[in-house]
Amino acid sequence: MKPWKPLDAVLLLSAPPWLNVYQESVELPSGRILNDFYRVVLPDFAVIVAVTPNKELVMVRSYKHGLRKISLSAPAGLVETGELPLQTAQRELLEETGYAATEWRSMGRFIVDGNRQCGTAHIFLAENALPVAVGREDEAEEVQVELLSPNKFLQAIQQGDVATLTTVSAVALVMVSGLGR
Amino acid sequence: MKPWKPLDAVLLLSAPPWLNVYQESVELPSGRILNDFYRVVLPDFAVIVAVTPNKELVMVRSYKHGLRKISLSAPAGLVETGELPLQTAQRELLEETGYAATEWRSMGRFIVDGNRQCGTAHIFLAENALPVAVGREDEAEEVQVELLSPNKFLQAIQQGDVATLTTVSAVALVMVSGLGR
Repeated sequence: MKPWKPLDAVLLLSAPPWLNVYQESVELPSGRILNDFYRVVLPDFAVIVAVTPNKELVMVRSYKHGLRKISLSAPAGLVETGELPLQTAQRELLEETGYAATEWRSMGRFIVDGNRQCGTAHIFLAENALPVAVGREDEAEEVQVELLSPNKFLQAIQQGDVATLTTVSAVALVMVSGLGR
Repeated sequence: MKPWKPLDAVLLLSAPPWLNVYQESVELPSGRILNDFYRVVLPDFAVIVAVTPNKELVMVRSYKHGLRKISLSAPAGLVETGELPLQTAQRELLEETGYAATEWRSMGRFIVDGNRQCGTAHIFLAENALPVAVGREDEAEEVQVELLSPNKFLQAIQQGDVATLTTVSAVALVMVSGLGR
């Protein structure tokens, strides 16, 4: 099984720090050339599955404009310049929820779209999460903290109340790995 | 908690059927106006968690150009015009792996990125999956079918062999829901 060979890439759209879109030319292993392979480069982000000592998940309810609706999601945020993903995770958990945690573990890094790219998710488990401050309420992101048992989280998925793939993957990965219990 | 109010949207980039990128102006609940909210519209796709009667997952190993590497993933593909997502799932499972299944169940639909959108994933569980044909080997997508137990799948994640968020979310969601066993 052979990789494709990148031949050329044209920057079609640049809107830093939010996104860059490239049109690539690639040569397939068969020798055929594709001239319209698009790459959407979005920033890396951290997703946090925070679990309290009572084994409840620390989730946030907020308006998501990509969805045009209010949804339940795991705390998450973009990795800022100069930050390690773990630092992003610790900062975002505190900023969004007011919680801090004593035990942190990386659950892996995953590209969002295997063809287009669309950013890379760094998933973290944060155990022994406790409230230490008041969560952020900035004007672009009104956030309500909710504590849910893992079973309630699964019910929320079934009811369509968890609308993003990122949240599903992070929490389900922690649960299926037997962690956070 | 109030939704944002869309004011205007400019199509910055159009490359059908692959992607459209819009720059939106939105009014926040505070009254402030954001003029640079980007929406990346990618096609809907189906992801299939196929399980054999022996409770093995039917996975594919293939080169993913978004990653620039070979990775293990769940069968998946874009929803074609006029297709229902379930039809896409049944077609893609057969095309990519040569397997067909007798029992299909929707596990939900999830937006990929809560801010940018980046497509919608339709996740399906396919039980009693059996080989009925030879899988596709087209020139853009050389594919090798691999059967894995759920434990082997978790090991593959830990080893960095499963690189896409889509695959993690689909398989972990099925496993944590207690299905496919």
